Amino acid sequence: MKNFKILEIKEGIFDNNNKEADLLRAELKQQNNLLINLMSSPGSGKTTTLVSTINALKDEMKIGVMEADIDSDVDAHTIANTGTKVIQLHTGGMCHLDAEMTKQGLEGLGSEGLDLTILENVGNLVCPAEFDTGAAKNVMILSVPEGDDKPLKYPLMFSICDVLLINKIDAMGFFDFDLEAATTRVKKLNPNIKVFPISAKTGEGVEAWTNWLRGAVKDWQES
Amino acid sequence: MKNFKILEIKEGIFDNNNKEADLLRAELKQQNNLLINLMSSPGSGKTTTLVSTINALKDEMKIGVMEADIDSDVDAHTIANTGTKVIQLHTGGMCHLDAEMTKQGLEGLGSEGLDLTILENVGNLVCPAEFDTGAAKNVMILSVPEGDDKPLKYPLMFSICDVLLINKIDAMGFFDFDLEAATTRVKKLNPNIKVFPISAKTGEGVEAWTNWLRGAVKDWQES
Repeated sequence: MKNFKILEIKEGIFDNNNKEADLLRAELKQQNNLLINLMSSPGSGKTTTLVSTINALKDEMKIGVMEADIDSDVDAHTIANTGTKVIQLHTGGMCHLDAEMTKQGLEGLGSEGLDLTILENVGNLVCPAEFDTGAAKNVMILSVPEGDDKPLKYPLMFSICDVLLINKIDAMGFFDFDLEAATTRVKKLNPNIKVFPISAKTGEGVEAWTNWLRGAVKDWQES
Repeated sequence: MKNFKILEIKEGIFDNNNKEADLLRAELKQQNNLLINLMSSPGSGKTTTLVSTINALKDEMKIGVMEADIDSDVDAHTIANTGTKVIQLHTGGMCHLDAEMTKQGLEGLGSEGLDLTILENVGNLVCPAEFDTGAAKNVMILSVPEGDDKPLKYPLMFSICDVLLINKIDAMGFFDFDLEAATTRVKKLNPNIKVFPISAKTGEGVEAWTNWLRGAVKDWQES
């Protein structure tokens, strides 16, 4: 039996998505709920990273997850197995979420009382970069097999993120990935971005990321 | 010095993209030019696969390449090094190409006299699946590190393709990828799709794919 629901979300009807996003952010601030918008290519390890992250933090805070996909609910199943509150959002073919769609997701999830909500956006480095979801922080994952040239090809995505997780570093010997070159390219686009090399599979580097996230929740709730 | 040009393409103005695509396909048929629309996630190895493919076929036929990206020209540089005619298309933030944009690219490239033209579409499994470019054949690449669950999450993309290249099979031991499960999932969506497991890096399996492509050019020119 599924212990989550599937919600078909509708495209936002508002002309001014940025204004809607600001309103949603203010509402979440009042609720002490830090919303993270997690973005990446398909197959970069968003869900595995999410599972590691949840396992590191679930005893300290209340966490909720929104899994957005064109179709399927495989990721929501995986997250539900951690015991975390989760909802699967279907975007009806849309390649991104906007603030209104995110709001529908939060209502469907029932986000009252959560300290941290993570939106796993549609896997795509183009469209999700163009729409403010109302999240407090944007986090993206680039995985080692994708290559260190991605900041050159998708500059907007790397520019709008607060954190970059470079995942699958356990595969570094197998692929021709230059961590320093990737970091230099990203910092050139976005000097303030935090970069955490991790392996969600082996756990390497995950603690530095979850420490950052713990601090971000604290700042959000206390400032 | 660059031996290719960069063209800023504009979004199509036609209401009926399918009609424009059919017209473009008919025009390319008359010119004996087989247009392949190559799609995948970012980092699945489109450009490396293209280089292997070009090297296998360039002595037998005239090949042209259109590299579509949001930004940068790193891929066009790589292709230009093979000696093949290439143009870099910038989509101005658009996550896909439509038939009108493809036509602009073909004009910019100068596609007269080519036997085979390959469009490397924007790296993305969502938007490119929704727009007919006018290509004779749709080909997609799924790479092993992305995972065997991708047909479940992006069914439309797998449904519209004539060929699926499963790339980076040399990394199969490193990642938890079930080739049989992936193939079964794809064939369920699209029973007629041709599936070729390859490693563009080591060359394994590439010959079966280039044999198929050679046959497709022959069929297009002779039928």
